[in-house]
Formats: sequence, C-alpha cells, structure tokens
Amino acid sequence: MTSNQLQHSKNSLGQQFFTFAEPPDEMFLESGARLGPVTIAYETYGQLSTSRDNVVLIAHAFSGDSHVAGCLTDDQGEAKPGWWDSMVGPGKGIDTNRYFVICSNILGSCMGSTGPAAINPATGKPYGLDFPVVTIGDMVDAQKTLLDHLEIDSLLAVIGGSVGGMQALEWCVRYPDMVRAAVPLATTMRHSALAIAFNEVARQSIMADPNWCQGDYYGKKTPDLGLAIARMVGHVTYLSDQAMRKKFGRRLQDKKDFSFGFDADFQVESYLRYQGSKFVSRFDANSLLYITKAADYFDLVDKLTTKESIQDLVGASIKFLVISYTSDWLYPTYQSRELVRSLKRTGQDVSFCEIAADCGHDAFLIPDERLSKLIKGFLGGVAHG
Amino acid sequence: MTSNQLQHSKNSLGQQFFTFAEPPDEMFLESGARLGPVTIAYETYGQLSTSRDNVVLIAHAFSGDSHVAGCLTDDQGEAKPGWWDSMVGPGKGIDTNRYFVICSNILGSCMGSTGPAAINPATGKPYGLDFPVVTIGDMVDAQKTLLDHLEIDSLLAVIGGSVGGMQALEWCVRYPDMVRAAVPLATTMRHSALAIAFNEVARQSIMADPNWCQGDYYGKKTPDLGLAIARMVGHVTYLSDQAMRKKFGRRLQDKKDFSFGFDADFQVESYLRYQGSKFVSRFDANSLLYITKAADYFDLVDKLTTKESIQDLVGASIKFLVISYTSDWLYPTYQSRELVRSLKRTGQDVSFCEIAADCGHDAFLIPDERLSKLIKGFLGGVAHG
Repeated sequence: MTSNQLQHSKNSLGQQFFTFAEPPDEMFLESGARLGPVTIAYETYGQLSTSRDNVVLIAHAFSGDSHVAGCLTDDQGEAKPGWWDSMVGPGKGIDTNRYFVICSNILGSCMGSTGPAAINPATGKPYGLDFPVVTIGDMVDAQKTLLDHLEIDSLLAVIGGSVGGMQALEWCVRYPDMVRAAVPLATTMRHSALAIAFNEVARQSIMADPNWCQGDYYGKKTPDLGLAIARMVGHVTYLSDQAMRKKFGRRLQDKKDFSFGFDADFQVESYLRYQGSKFVSRFDANSLLYITKAADYFDLVDKLTTKESIQDLVGASIKFLVISYTSDWLYPTYQSRELVRSLKRTGQDVSFCEIAADCGHDAFLIPDERLSKLIKGFLGGVAHG
Repeated sequence: MTSNQLQHSKNSLGQQFFTFAEPPDEMFLESGARLGPVTIAYETYGQLSTSRDNVVLIAHAFSGDSHVAGCLTDDQGEAKPGWWDSMVGPGKGIDTNRYFVICSNILGSCMGSTGPAAINPATGKPYGLDFPVVTIGDMVDAQKTLLDHLEIDSLLAVIGGSVGGMQALEWCVRYPDMVRAAVPLATTMRHSALAIAFNEVARQSIMADPNWCQGDYYGKKTPDLGLAIARMVGHVTYLSDQAMRKKFGRRLQDKKDFSFGFDADFQVESYLRYQGSKFVSRFDANSLLYITKAADYFDLVDKLTTKESIQDLVGASIKFLVISYTSDWLYPTYQSRELVRSLKRTGQDVSFCEIAADCGHDAFLIPDERLSKLIKGFLGGVAHG
C-alpha cells in the first residue's frame, strides 16, 4: 500500500478491508488451529508522518468496531458517531491533527473482520462453531499483520479500554520493540473468576436459546432472546451499584405505582430490556461467545511476573499510563495496581491514575475532560520524549 | 391448636401444614387481590414455655424452606440437613433448649406453602401466572396468621438473612407490639437498582425459555434451562470477587490446558453450571419470578424515615441487632448503616456489627462461631432484659 492510499483512507473516514492468510498460507492461531483467509476491517484518521512515527493504534472493547471517531452515515441513512468520538479527533485527547490513528475490528467479531459469521472456505457456508477459538494474542497478531501491510513498524502508542486494554498489554508482550507507549484503561492483566462467571452466564443464556442450534443459525431464526439476556448481564457489569443508584434508583417506569405483574416496573428493568433488544440488531451471538472466551483466557501474569518470561519486556522501554476507575467492579482498581507493580518490576516507566467516577466500568467511554487531558499530555510527552 | 399439638410438632421435627383463608374468606393482599385457601408449611423446634414468651421466628431467604435445623430424610431416603443447622439447635447460637423456634415457608414459594404451582380452586389447575403477585408484607401477614393459629402473640425475636431479613424488618413495621427483638442479617431496607437488575436478568432468562409458556408449564416440559441460568445469576451475586478468587481463582477443571472450545474450562464455570442444574430439580421457576418480584418491591424507607409513618415503631421498643458482611455486594454494608441510622432516629435500641468475611452475601449461611456467639449473646440479653 502506498502513502497515497493511506491518504485516501484518511479522507473517506470509511471502513477499509485488508485480507490476508489466503489458503494454503493460513494464519497460525494460539490454539494450534489455522485460519484463512482473514479479513480485518479498519479505519484510519489523521495523516501518517513522513517518518511514520506518529501512529496511535486504538483497540476496541468487546462489542466495539473500527469506527472510533467522526460520524458515518450507514446504509439506512442513520448517523453513526464513533464509539470514542469524545476522545479522538482534531484537537481532542487523541489529536488526529498530530497522530495517525488506526482502529481495526478484532478477529472473531462481526463488524467487518472475520468471525464465526464469515464464510468458511472449506464449506462455502458460515463457520458457526467451526470457527476456531481465538485469543487476545491472535487478535493482536492480526493487527500486526495489518500494520505490516500498512508498512508501519512502530507504534507511538497502543491504547484501549477493557478488552481493548488487554490487547494493548498483549502488544507490549508480543511486540515490545514496536511499542513506545501503552495506555491500558479499565482493564486487567488476567481475567478474574468473577469476570469469567459473568461471561459464562452470558454464554449459557445464548446456548440455551433453542434458535442457537449449536451455532448453526445463519440464514435462519437467530437466538435473539438469549443474546438479549447476555447483553443484559453485560450491562449490569458495565455499570455499578453507585451508577445504577444515580441513573435509576428505584424510579418507576411510566407508572405511579407497581404493576403487580411481570412487566418492567422499574426504569432499570426497562433500560436493561432496551439494551438487550437493541443489541440483537447489531451483534452476532456467536461473536459474543468467541470474544468472551478470548477475554476469559487472557492471563499475562506469567509473562509479566516470571523471570524467564519478562526478558523481552525488560529489554524494551515502554512508557505506560495505566488508568482505572473507582467504581469499576468488573476490573477493579486493585487489579490495575497489580499490573502497575508487575510492570515496574520489569523496569518500565509506569504512570498510574485512578479516576474518581461513579459510572462503573463504562466510565472510559463517557466524555471526560480529565481523561482527555491526561491522555493528551501523556502522548505529547511520548512524542517529544 | 393446643399445647399438646405443639408438643407433637416439636418431637416430630417434620414439616407441618396450616391452611387458612378458605373461600369466601380469602386473604387480602397488598396488591388488592384476594387469595385463598392459603397453606403455610412450617416446622418448630424446642419447647414453647408456659408463658409463651420464648418464641423465635426465623424467616428464610429466597430459595429456603421451613427446614432450618436438624436432619430430615426425604422420600428418596436422602438426608436433608437444615439450611441453618450450624446456627439452630440444642446449645447453638439459637438454642432450641431455651427457645421455641418456628420457621415457615414463605407465601409464593414451592416448598410446601401456597405458590404459583398450587391448585387454583377457581380452575382446578395450578395457578401459574394467575397467582397474584405477593409482597414481603403479604408473606409476613401469612406468618402472622400462622402465629395466631398457634396462639402466639409475642415474638422474643424475628431473625432472617437476605429476603429473610426483609421479612424481619417488615414484622417490626407491621406488628411492632408483637416483636421484642429483630436480627436482620445481610439485608436492606429497600432493594437497590443493582439488586433489581440482577433479579430482572434472572426473570428474563426464565421467561425466554420456550418451555416457560407464560407460566403454564405444570405437567409439561419445565423451563429448566432458563431456571438454571437464573440460578447462575443468583450464585454470582451470592459470592463476591474476593470469594471467587479464593474459591476458584483461574483454576482449570479436569484439564491441564484450555479446551479452545465452549466446554467449561474453569472451575468457576463448572460450579455455576452445577448449581444451575441442581436447582431445577428442587425449585419452581414461577416461584423464582414471584419471590424476586416481592424483593424488588421491598422498600421500607418511607416507613422508617418519614415522620408520619414511624409513629407505630416509635411507640414500640424493639431491640435490633443489624449484621452486615464486608464482602456482600448484593446488600453492601452502607445499606445496613442506612438502616441503622433510620432505626436510631425512631428511638430504637440498635446494635450493629459488620463482620469481616470474604465469602460474599452468602456469609450468613456459612458456619461461623462469631455469628453464633453474637446472636446467642443478643438473644440472652433480650430474654433477660
């Protein structure tokens, strides 16, 4: 790809697609399985500098996509703002006047990149459960292949929250020499039993839906009820006791008194039902299974704490900005502190900030001037460092 | 009922049944609906004193039953220990050598008392969703009718954890002159948005099961998958991040490595699946809907904080022992503190203890010498006070 093509991607602000690992040269996955061809959907923002040293890779969370900033109009003519538009753009925390921002849809997802809904070349039909289980490491390897294709061999920073934060950390472990700085937000270096438990409930609710059919539902009835419940579980974990009290409390929905029935009496019930039903129109149930499994498998503790494993990282010199939120109970602050301690032991330059916020795990997605300033200052320091 | 019959109930240690509100004299419910006949299953332990002043009423939690202590043998010859056998018995925290203990199955449940699985006299078929929505207040009123029948007009104490704690508090508000002391454990004076959210996910998972059939599944296939997932949600809330780390961490189940599939890789997944599937053999899905709804409706804040409402309680003189657990995130300590402050404002004699425990909401059910001593001392003080 030439810089002219990159120029083009910047101006269009639309999704682009890169396909690699055409059989017989499939991608090797961590499980030992092989996968190909692999398509990665991505978007870029800003301009690549002539010395190619201003690249910021943004890794999205579980249900995100490559459209991180700006406003796209979809096929139905509906405006679709980027999922982190408050953070990414000209003059913003991640300033697209200065940095060349890349965001790609993760492997296993359903937002343009190859996942269980993609066509299996061996059968000509959607993979379903024949799609191999992928890991956070596999997602990062696919991103690395995309960067190779874009002829980018150095990242000014890799930034992501939640599952995106796991990718940021995995980048540092897999390709430490390529990464100058990393900003893992609201994340963990290993998925806890509690986080696994919530994911398992979500998966079971999909797999209990008779329309799921062992994952073979493409072109048929889809497991919407199961997926909606899985999303409801997710939304409970994204909020917090505090956030829910503030946002909903015990306020009733459209009523002055209890229904004494099983309709949604409380606003929090309506909210969850709405979030569940909205999600099924945009997300594939099997992708939820695969991405939650990748998160559950995520565990960098050995790589970040055992002497033999940290050599690569010790050799590197990565600046870290670790950010946690007071009310995040999916990946609580103590887990970020564990991460900070481990990174410091490898000799890295680590800054840590716990942001006081009562909106739970989702806080990193909510417009917050403090966070924008923090990241802007940090990136500026790295760029001039 | 004569004292001779009570004597009998003490010796048998088996479930007894009391039926009242025979049509046309149905029980009036808080919703305005009428219900009858109503059967309440109960068990008693110890001996009623001649002055009838040694009665301790134990209120069970969401999925509990009347069998609080001792060991029963069920129809299949399987030994069934009481759900609080560590606390209730001769010489124990609630000493059946001193106190006459009553525990009844709550209205709406499926452990012997009338609930949605009971026969609707109007149709000759199980109620299903024709069963009226009941409240914690209705459960307490049914208990009151049972006590009237047993000719008991004073409770030395009413004790319960979780939904049982709500009943204990409701007793104090509804019948303050009958209650000398109350021990609400791991509970709240109003169900929070977070607790409602979890209950709503559980209800939706049942209602999404095609076997649920709008609650009309008796004698047909039952909504086992939905009920199992609802129970998994429950178990996540009963534990805690700490408890899960200690109990499971990231330990794998029967394997040395990941399955790279959707089997249960982690012990926490197997645990939840097991708890879910075990529950369906003993609990009715509709009862879960009704009891969670009653908990969601529970809100004594007005009755415990507004000047007009607390008059009855102000006139009374109830000794309270409020107990919370450090790792309970379903009904966190701050909610118990709110309760303590409200009770103190009504002039009650309130003791409060937050017990350090890392096993989450379920802590009150786990044998704990500290709790036994605390309750034993408190009851002794009330009895001699």
